[in-house]
Amino acid sequence: MSSNTSGNFFSFTTWGESHGKAIGCVVDGVPPLISLSEKDIQVYLNRRRPGQSKFTTQRQEKDHVEILSGVFEGLTTGHPISLIIHNEDQRPKDYSDIKDVFRPGHADYTYWAKYGIRDYRGGGRSSARETAMRVAAGSIARKVIKHKIKNNFKIIGALVQIGNNKIDYENWNDDFILKNDFFCPDEKIIIKWEEIISKARKNGSSLGAIIELRCQGMPVGLGEPVYDKLDADLAKAIISINAVKGVEIGNGFSSVTESGISNVDEMRIQNGKPIFLSNNNGGILGGISTGQDIVVRFCVKPTSSIISARKTIDTNLEETTVSTKGRHDPCVGIRAVPVGEAMMATTLADHCLRYL
Amino acid sequence: MSSNTSGNFFSFTTWGESHGKAIGCVVDGVPPLISLSEKDIQVYLNRRRPGQSKFTTQRQEKDHVEILSGVFEGLTTGHPISLIIHNEDQRPKDYSDIKDVFRPGHADYTYWAKYGIRDYRGGGRSSARETAMRVAAGSIARKVIKHKIKNNFKIIGALVQIGNNKIDYENWNDDFILKNDFFCPDEKIIIKWEEIISKARKNGSSLGAIIELRCQGMPVGLGEPVYDKLDADLAKAIISINAVKGVEIGNGFSSVTESGISNVDEMRIQNGKPIFLSNNNGGILGGISTGQDIVVRFCVKPTSSIISARKTIDTNLEETTVSTKGRHDPCVGIRAVPVGEAMMATTLADHCLRYL
Amino acid sequence: MSSNTSGNFFSFTTWGESHGKAIGCVVDGVPPLISLSEKDIQVYLNRRRPGQSKFTTQRQEKDHVEILSGVFEGLTTGHPISLIIHNEDQRPKDYSDIKDVFRPGHADYTYWAKYGIRDYRGGGRSSARETAMRVAAGSIARKVIKHKIKNNFKIIGALVQIGNNKIDYENWNDDFILKNDFFCPDEKIIIKWEEIISKARKNGSSLGAIIELRCQGMPVGLGEPVYDKLDADLAKAIISINAVKGVEIGNGFSSVTESGISNVDEMRIQNGKPIFLSNNNGGILGGISTGQDIVVRFCVKPTSSIISARKTIDTNLEETTVSTKGRHDPCVGIRAVPVGEAMMATTLADHCLRYL
Amino acid sequence: MSSNTSGNFFSFTTWGESHGKAIGCVVDGVPPLISLSEKDIQVYLNRRRPGQSKFTTQRQEKDHVEILSGVFEGLTTGHPISLIIHNEDQRPKDYSDIKDVFRPGHADYTYWAKYGIRDYRGGGRSSARETAMRVAAGSIARKVIKHKIKNNFKIIGALVQIGNNKIDYENWNDDFILKNDFFCPDEKIIIKWEEIISKARKNGSSLGAIIELRCQGMPVGLGEPVYDKLDADLAKAIISINAVKGVEIGNGFSSVTESGISNVDEMRIQNGKPIFLSNNNGGILGGISTGQDIVVRFCVKPTSSIISARKTIDTNLEETTVSTKGRHDPCVGIRAVPVGEAMMATTLADHCLRYL
Repeated sequence: MSSNTSGNFFSFTTWGESHGKAIGCVVDGVPPLISLSEKDIQVYLNRRRPGQSKFTTQRQEKDHVEILSGVFEGLTTGHPISLIIHNEDQRPKDYSDIKDVFRPGHADYTYWAKYGIRDYRGGGRSSARETAMRVAAGSIARKVIKHKIKNNFKIIGALVQIGNNKIDYENWNDDFILKNDFFCPDEKIIIKWEEIISKARKNGSSLGAIIELRCQGMPVGLGEPVYDKLDADLAKAIISINAVKGVEIGNGFSSVTESGISNVDEMRIQNGKPIFLSNNNGGILGGISTGQDIVVRFCVKPTSSIISARKTIDTNLEETTVSTKGRHDPCVGIRAVPVGEAMMATTLADHCLRYL
Repeated sequence: MSSNTSGNFFSFTTWGESHGKAIGCVVDGVPPLISLSEKDIQVYLNRRRPGQSKFTTQRQEKDHVEILSGVFEGLTTGHPISLIIHNEDQRPKDYSDIKDVFRPGHADYTYWAKYGIRDYRGGGRSSARETAMRVAAGSIARKVIKHKIKNNFKIIGALVQIGNNKIDYENWNDDFILKNDFFCPDEKIIIKWEEIISKARKNGSSLGAIIELRCQGMPVGLGEPVYDKLDADLAKAIISINAVKGVEIGNGFSSVTESGISNVDEMRIQNGKPIFLSNNNGGILGGISTGQDIVVRFCVKPTSSIISARKTIDTNLEETTVSTKGRHDPCVGIRAVPVGEAMMATTLADHCLRYL
Repeated sequence: MSSNTSGNFFSFTTWGESHGKAIGCVVDGVPPLISLSEKDIQVYLNRRRPGQSKFTTQRQEKDHVEILSGVFEGLTTGHPISLIIHNEDQRPKDYSDIKDVFRPGHADYTYWAKYGIRDYRGGGRSSARETAMRVAAGSIARKVIKHKIKNNFKIIGALVQIGNNKIDYENWNDDFILKNDFFCPDEKIIIKWEEIISKARKNGSSLGAIIELRCQGMPVGLGEPVYDKLDADLAKAIISINAVKGVEIGNGFSSVTESGISNVDEMRIQNGKPIFLSNNNGGILGGISTGQDIVVRFCVKPTSSIISARKTIDTNLEETTVSTKGRHDPCVGIRAVPVGEAMMATTLADHCLRYL
Repeated sequence: MSSNTSGNFFSFTTWGESHGKAIGCVVDGVPPLISLSEKDIQVYLNRRRPGQSKFTTQRQEKDHVEILSGVFEGLTTGHPISLIIHNEDQRPKDYSDIKDVFRPGHADYTYWAKYGIRDYRGGGRSSARETAMRVAAGSIARKVIKHKIKNNFKIIGALVQIGNNKIDYENWNDDFILKNDFFCPDEKIIIKWEEIISKARKNGSSLGAIIELRCQGMPVGLGEPVYDKLDADLAKAIISINAVKGVEIGNGFSSVTESGISNVDEMRIQNGKPIFLSNNNGGILGGISTGQDIVVRFCVKPTSSIISARKTIDTNLEETTVSTKGRHDPCVGIRAVPVGEAMMATTLADHCLRYL
């Protein structure tokens, strides 16, 4: 029942504040005898790591992860895996200006109202810094999925829209995604995106984004009716990411303007196996995976931490304005890509352990 | 861990198949000393009940609910409330044609692949008939919320789009919602909707829809960081409803095209209390309610049960076509309105019991 | 989190009051394709059924169970199995005398203090009548275990002590257990037990008892370190039975007077497989089954409902005395035997589904 | 569902191996604004710490605890509290002799059979070293209870029997408990205990023990019918402690030889409040606290790690003998006292947060 825990079978519990000593998580449910090293985790952490491009926050964190338990002689033991990352570039002083002021669009006010106490140092627990541990857990989840399905599978996340600028799906190139600062699959849109982000930053503003996640290679049968449907659990996992305000499965909201005739995914047999002639349902029917690609899209609102002054109030319930200085992402949607992938991985691992 | 259970503090477990003897649920976590009668539940069930208008299925079910436990001398006792509805108009024979055939867009194939057994009578457990018990649980949830917040609150669901036809928000009228067959808040769009539904039915097709849910009167502080955020739990609850393919909070996907400057909800003080100058975040920040209206929108794909023949396969993995006769909703989105309200109510009740 | 639910993987949720309309339960987690009929359940219910001998309560209940869902054409479907037993011989009027009076040794006072409301009709939910549904769930659990371990196994419960009178373990005879009114494995002690129970009844008193449960045929490996140890879960399940005040595993409290040298169960190899030279640990080491017989013993206090007048108070906090008339068991330990077996079965089924 | 987590509302998840880098836990559910420092935790850890007397293991561990999160400016924040203790005196080499050999009476064989991998360094996760984190969590639980009940309460654990030697309850002296090496309340028995432990050690053997836990000051109403009864949860928590083989509530197994007349706890009114004339039920009726002292007793089997050679097998399924050298407790029951107290505290805190 800990609200800092995600998942039931593959589960992870995160702890730590943005500007505290360290952040960490405890991953449980990992089967024994899976090879696991810090390097396996670090590669994914490096993708999310701040301070790597001019389009993300300038906070410098190496995000060096250490495994404290659950691995013996290079193999998982079946016991909890404790991970820790020591915070290095915390600068709580950056936040002394806003000690008593609520940044609008942030969790500052709601945390304070709920808990009666406020860790003003970068939002404490509400900071997106917490998502580093999601990425760490996600890297282990990938290993668990592979161990269970004994098959190749691939989870790919990509940024498909920033502000009004959508990619052209015709240009989608998996290989390009990790070769640019945006996790973008469409080489042609990069210049435009650089332009609008630079402009937003200059204006002291920020931009929203849409991310698409695809998982290839999942078997049929993952997901549990009625309330733990695979799409329901994916939606919960994704919406729990900071700044996410919407999620859709398959063609999602577009299905509304389809007719029933065109929207059903017809079936045929190919090489003796069931196939589908389309994938409007995003690989999930009745909450259970069909064996097709699982497709999830989600949106991330424009970063609330902006330099432009906005009206707000303080802890004395007095009116004021605030301009967030700190070091912030002009488009948090970018770094949400590896986090989205991680949450897809942990959710799928959870259902693999539940069913397979 | 039962996947037939929703909620942790206010929880309900549903059981029963579309064409079995009965359907029911066990509601637990209800505090003692709340007045409760079958009538209190029936009023909500009647809204979702099939066979009431020509725009929904013609199956005739009175959906008469009976309380079997948990209420003594008109008051809840704090013990589980068992509810039962006996199925009356089940016609399993309607389904004999499709006994071995998977209806595309349905859970038929995935259930069969997962369980190796198929209750072909109307989808058994995957049928939307299960949602009757959600509505029953939702009616009790409303009583629990009222009991906890000791205040007036209001949950309103409305259909805001069918196919391409969106309501005009300027015409929104709460009072009109229960006075038409569509739970529509905009009187002016009714004729258009009647027209397109009739047309879809004539074409052997069906239509998708968008529903908006609003809850007024919730206090600040509901929702638990990090993984049981209020919006994450709402998203899970809503996506678990049959045929729902997307969910968004506040301005949702529209936030992507907003600038950071315009999207933050600025704060002021009014009568000594914090207020917000806009509600782009749909009443939730950092996963915790702000005290503003909680706004959730979700889409329902076009009904998959259509009379037009579609390509499919059967349990022998042979190719065939199927045309679903039965008695089906041309736009399941309509009857999803009271179900959506119910899931909002049960989720809010769950968080009220968790926090308040 | 429902406290009316037992188990996580094999789970059951009970509902209903002693003198309400009906009692029932919803069993979830049962794999598909297991044959199941009402008869399979009834045979166990009949063992616990009241009104069968002069040594148990005279309440007449046929305890006729009905399956409402989850079984299709004689096979489980993988979906929740809803069971119901209608109460027949409820006589709420028997309780009108004690409407406002707390029976000492009962849950009357604590329920009233906790909930502020009291279902005085036989204790409502706190009545041992609830245990009928445990027995029903237990009968399904046995089928699940068999399905998972694909092997013969046997759960045997027996009464080994009433008051001061212990059986002679030398006389233990499995076959005799179901052939007497006490679930006693020792034919020679029967006359003595009849005598002391008759005497206790004549004195308006009651007797305590000890029950021993043995499960043969479980594989090695059931149970989860650290907090869901097999013995920890068995202890919780057993102590949750009405009137149980103690539980022990293997030689239990007797181990205290053993030396470390004699108490360890030495190991050898027989026919290429590990065996143990003794079973002081009751088939569980480190919370995980060893493959030996699982042995659990528990005690049931003397029935608190006695005809002798005892000092008590009423709901007005005034002093009075109470003498419980009703129809009660002079030694509830007797009917606790099938209930204990059932809780052992549900706990083992839960761990079989968790691990195997 | 992590089996390394105890509790639902007040919950803690432990991680770490006996001879790994560190051990730790994440405590969740702690309300905000409770003062908490490392010192508050250390005082309890020091009681359980090894190497303090000649009657316990000679392993030297300072067990210095560090708080990594969840406390800001001396107060809890409502967010997870991460604790870590670095292992100092690990000597994995001590275990090289038994690398492939199963110590009888230990979890060695069952862990290996279940996981297919073995952390032979002192039992890895099955070691009693894990209980240090229970004690740490227990110290925070005490603060939570105090915060919730806004009242004085006291949890006292004491050793009441070693081998055949029971204390004289007439001599019980709370103040003496922390003034001797045995957590013994009876000064007169100390010499005898020293004698029998020295003798057991000399004989290469070990001794079992019984511990009694008492909690004064709990309100009426803690505990949830039917399956999360307070005594059921206490039993589970206690049996989950290493080497515990039995638990009883109130007069427990002794109730069997009581008559129903003498065993019920009669009630009277004193100063306008309900009181009981005895406490045979150990402060719990129907699974709910009565407001009397909560009394739990549990037994700890003789330490299985003994120097005397015992028959066993190895990972090649070959027969051998083993004599455990290492540094072990001749009577683990002694150090189980603070652990038992801690598990009582965490269970009560869990129910305080659930109900009050």
